[in-house]
Amino acid sequence: MVKVAVIGASGYTGAELARLIQLHPQFELTHLYVSAGSVDKGKPLAQLYPNLIGTVDLPLLPLDEMALAQLGNQTDAVCLALDHLISAELAPKLLALGLVVFDLSGGHRFADASVYSNFYGFEHPAPELLTTAAYGLAEWQAERISAANLIAVAGCYPTASLSALKPLKQAGLISDGSRPVINAVSGVTGAGRKATINNSFCQVSLTPYGVLGHRHQPEIELQLDHEVVFTPHLGAFKRGILATITVQVPNGTTAADIDAAYSCYNDSSVVQLLPTGQWPKIDDVANTPNCLLSWKLDAERGVLVVVSAIDNLLKGAASQALQCMNIRFAVESGL
Amino acid sequence: MVKVAVIGASGYTGAELARLIQLHPQFELTHLYVSAGSVDKGKPLAQLYPNLIGTVDLPLLPLDEMALAQLGNQTDAVCLALDHLISAELAPKLLALGLVVFDLSGGHRFADASVYSNFYGFEHPAPELLTTAAYGLAEWQAERISAANLIAVAGCYPTASLSALKPLKQAGLISDGSRPVINAVSGVTGAGRKATINNSFCQVSLTPYGVLGHRHQPEIELQLDHEVVFTPHLGAFKRGILATITVQVPNGTTAADIDAAYSCYNDSSVVQLLPTGQWPKIDDVANTPNCLLSWKLDAERGVLVVVSAIDNLLKGAASQALQCMNIRFAVESGL
Amino acid sequence: MVKVAVIGASGYTGAELARLIQLHPQFELTHLYVSAGSVDKGKPLAQLYPNLIGTVDLPLLPLDEMALAQLGNQTDAVCLALDHLISAELAPKLLALGLVVFDLSGGHRFADASVYSNFYGFEHPAPELLTTAAYGLAEWQAERISAANLIAVAGCYPTASLSALKPLKQAGLISDGSRPVINAVSGVTGAGRKATINNSFCQVSLTPYGVLGHRHQPEIELQLDHEVVFTPHLGAFKRGILATITVQVPNGTTAADIDAAYSCYNDSSVVQLLPTGQWPKIDDVANTPNCLLSWKLDAERGVLVVVSAIDNLLKGAASQALQCMNIRFAVESGL
Amino acid sequence: MVKVAVIGASGYTGAELARLIQLHPQFELTHLYVSAGSVDKGKPLAQLYPNLIGTVDLPLLPLDEMALAQLGNQTDAVCLALDHLISAELAPKLLALGLVVFDLSGGHRFADASVYSNFYGFEHPAPELLTTAAYGLAEWQAERISAANLIAVAGCYPTASLSALKPLKQAGLISDGSRPVINAVSGVTGAGRKATINNSFCQVSLTPYGVLGHRHQPEIELQLDHEVVFTPHLGAFKRGILATITVQVPNGTTAADIDAAYSCYNDSSVVQLLPTGQWPKIDDVANTPNCLLSWKLDAERGVLVVVSAIDNLLKGAASQALQCMNIRFAVESGL
Repeated sequence: MVKVAVIGASGYTGAELARLIQLHPQFELTHLYVSAGSVDKGKPLAQLYPNLIGTVDLPLLPLDEMALAQLGNQTDAVCLALDHLISAELAPKLLALGLVVFDLSGGHRFADASVYSNFYGFEHPAPELLTTAAYGLAEWQAERISAANLIAVAGCYPTASLSALKPLKQAGLISDGSRPVINAVSGVTGAGRKATINNSFCQVSLTPYGVLGHRHQPEIELQLDHEVVFTPHLGAFKRGILATITVQVPNGTTAADIDAAYSCYNDSSVVQLLPTGQWPKIDDVANTPNCLLSWKLDAERGVLVVVSAIDNLLKGAASQALQCMNIRFAVESGL
Repeated sequence: MVKVAVIGASGYTGAELARLIQLHPQFELTHLYVSAGSVDKGKPLAQLYPNLIGTVDLPLLPLDEMALAQLGNQTDAVCLALDHLISAELAPKLLALGLVVFDLSGGHRFADASVYSNFYGFEHPAPELLTTAAYGLAEWQAERISAANLIAVAGCYPTASLSALKPLKQAGLISDGSRPVINAVSGVTGAGRKATINNSFCQVSLTPYGVLGHRHQPEIELQLDHEVVFTPHLGAFKRGILATITVQVPNGTTAADIDAAYSCYNDSSVVQLLPTGQWPKIDDVANTPNCLLSWKLDAERGVLVVVSAIDNLLKGAASQALQCMNIRFAVESGL
Repeated sequence: MVKVAVIGASGYTGAELARLIQLHPQFELTHLYVSAGSVDKGKPLAQLYPNLIGTVDLPLLPLDEMALAQLGNQTDAVCLALDHLISAELAPKLLALGLVVFDLSGGHRFADASVYSNFYGFEHPAPELLTTAAYGLAEWQAERISAANLIAVAGCYPTASLSALKPLKQAGLISDGSRPVINAVSGVTGAGRKATINNSFCQVSLTPYGVLGHRHQPEIELQLDHEVVFTPHLGAFKRGILATITVQVPNGTTAADIDAAYSCYNDSSVVQLLPTGQWPKIDDVANTPNCLLSWKLDAERGVLVVVSAIDNLLKGAASQALQCMNIRFAVESGL
Repeated sequence: MVKVAVIGASGYTGAELARLIQLHPQFELTHLYVSAGSVDKGKPLAQLYPNLIGTVDLPLLPLDEMALAQLGNQTDAVCLALDHLISAELAPKLLALGLVVFDLSGGHRFADASVYSNFYGFEHPAPELLTTAAYGLAEWQAERISAANLIAVAGCYPTASLSALKPLKQAGLISDGSRPVINAVSGVTGAGRKATINNSFCQVSLTPYGVLGHRHQPEIELQLDHEVVFTPHLGAFKRGILATITVQVPNGTTAADIDAAYSCYNDSSVVQLLPTGQWPKIDDVANTPNCLLSWKLDAERGVLVVVSAIDNLLKGAASQALQCMNIRFAVESGL
């Protein structure tokens, strides 16, 4: 049994991590931590998430200096479900304790530290670590993940986008000089568990945000090695991301070419192609670890539309972290 | 034209008041005020509520001492869409300026000041005013409303409940010693426009609250002169209240008796009985000033179920305030 | 391994049954059947429910005479997720094949066949079977369930209602002559997977239905041995039932009495009491097999409010069927 | 007073038309018709739409041959809220009676009859009328509308799309050879009032449909005179369309150029530009006649994102029809 702790367990992603680790036959959930000043410290996680009653019995412990010091003796791995900067500050300490760190924030997704000052609003506190981190997009980075002690689990929008686009890029099916247009809609859990006027029930209604400036655009472009136009939206639902992606393909591209490109997922139990003509719905992926893909080609115009759907808290965060943990510790899936 | 200002215009009720007054052919909307410290001061109301673009052009002004002092010269009436205590503190000053005050808070709904310490958590700052206020349930208090300078517009749950129960009480159709059971579900606008974890999108899901202790229970009992059991719920929708009310009726009560009791609404354009067998839905009243009622009697058991639906922001607040203003200033409906 | 087939697998309950049986370590899902004339015959279940991709691979087979004849050799038990009358017609044939039948319809919940003509609109085709069926409310009928070959799995509303009321009745805490008032709201999956104008997206909005005449009222009264007033509602959400129950308790009843009554669930992993002051939300039980209860007593007035929440497709149908199967075949929970 | 009848009044658009005409000070709503075989014939419209109680009192009359023959004496104009083919068959008869016809279907939006066989699935029954129809996009076709007797009110998606794109096209701000990418999400009322499994409450969840083949793509391209990629989606909400449009602009395009292009709407009370950085939400336009626009330019890459929001039943149908009627009969707005 691999022992795992979750830091930042009171948030939506943290609670999903706790549930998945608890149910995994080869992982043992050892501790749940929140920041030392959290109003939730001391509460059972299931008090915040009554759906976990009978599944997860652990309390939310405050992560003070003493708790942090003991982590090295208590566990093998930690999952960080924290803000970007806090994760970036915490990771070096955890690695120094000999722990394997799965960071679900964006704190270690870029080798180039300047991205943090440009898109995240802070100077990275440990830039020397950035080149050691594996990017945790499980289907595409297994080799690096298996050898790393710091895994930067992929972002939710990048997971939905890259799962659709990387097979095309790899097969040379994105026209040079064209920019795929990614329109994506996320459920409100994507904004985290906190009280803001924008996320209050009566204010939520389908709308774009972060237009032409969202921090997931450079993450997608870096991993795809291709420019894109990425426009995220907030939708009035709790969980899930649907990304509709319009791609200019090279002249002469056929449906068979697209089929061949996506055959890379033939052995995946997580990324699945729907039958032609069936499109994914948000609720088809909510509460599942799957990424569902479907596409249609207008061969005459050279236009391809690919649609990708994931649960932002699962394939977009917690279950992808477990995929990475499965790879890193060479255990059976258990998802 | 009767000149009217709204104080507390940045909230959901305030915005509806502004819209209704603006559209009313015999009222002139003169000013919109927010508290002097509001983050929204100076903004056009339509920036907060883009659905009002093209309808309401006024900005949200800070209600400082100077603005308050000038109100007497600028307007005839004010609507207060504020917290209970703030309304109770403000009303005496406004009345002293010669204004007619329509208070949409609970600050003046009880002649007995002890209700404020017991259910509202504060000592009433102007208890001497309480007996001068008319209770603003328009269909039932027209005479008092027409003569009052301080109108305590009825609460949202009490409006839904009393519209259903008062005709029965008046007709002697509530069994002595029995307590009608009122189960009501409100949309989230009922909690006001603010950021709280409980009202954040992902936390909202049908649930009861304030069980056996909500402050609307004494308001209903006072106005009905009968004990009730009132259980409010929060529902995952934006606006509307549906109240399902179970009443023990006296032996021998017939459907004709119930019909006769509700004939009091025959001339009302606001309170409407649905045809037998058709039950109101929340969306039948959302964005309307109506109260829809429907009922069914089990004559054998002496059990009557009455269902009442209103828009909590309209008949439960803003449009009822306009009904009261119509009565007070003796103008045509204009709703 | 106990072999189990599902008949009526294309509906919402059938799909949940298929998923739960598939994931249960001691059950083997052998076949999924739909009626011989179904438009869905031949399709993989996961085509209708893409969330099951990767979990359930079986197709929907037509249940013609030949398939029916072979069932006795192929499986040990069948779950019926069908209309009431079809279940009542099919059960004798399945029992004659030596199968254990778990009927999730209302077709075998009443020993008295006259209930079918009065509330279900048909003459029961096999009234002699009715007294042999065990009522499948797992926490309360384990002994009968363990010995029966025909288990009438409890209805969704009755499960929510009886789980809250039976402990009170057993403890003598429902005043003689009083009728508990049950107001319950169900998600739209409760109406089944079919196209009707009432269940079309734009028509759904919180509303009561079946007032003073729903077929679940006699089911509750029979199992509780006490009269009740039951008013169901349709809510604008997909799954879950929240029942708010108002009970007149005998003079002198204390909170300790209520606590003692509910101590019957102390060892249950399924029925759980929330801490005092925390009320269940629909989303706390959605996608879980749990029944969450919470209550508050007004000792002075002798009024008790109990709130009960379940997932209508799980504890209200599929997971309760699995609880019954666990009992009947004496296997570990596996929920 | 201009007399107006609505044919097809039982649908969502028909009911909105009835409400708007009734409330318009210069229009008189004379009759509401449904097809002679409708199950709703004889019912008051407000029975189907209880939100209209107190606003529209008229019944739904069957449109048989006799009723049709009398229409010429009873009214000045008719609005058709019917299927495409039925509208196309009915329009010549109504025009022959001397009526002005506002067709809200797609039955007269194309001069080229081949579009009907290619995209609508029928041969147009009166192709000679097609060139006489004015396209009812009110801000752009006032002159033709004012002179026509047959007005083909613009489609909902085309209205949202063209309101955003036509100013850019007119200003030469869409790069030659590039195709704007329109991703749009519509509420479920867009699918009409009918019972289908796809529109049943539990099946609805954000998903694309009609990918690379929706009939609104040729309508947009014809009116814009530019190729586009149009991908519609169904969203889990009742009313509204949000279109997110990504445009490649010519090198050197500046924000001032975009501002200048949209200055064409400076005098419009219906199409409104939001302040920079504020994006429209669906609920900002629901129940309003407005089209809200906002945009952001990445001048370096030459990428412009424009977002457009309308209520599909109002600016996308009924209130746009009223705009056209205002123009045609030269009356004040009254919206």
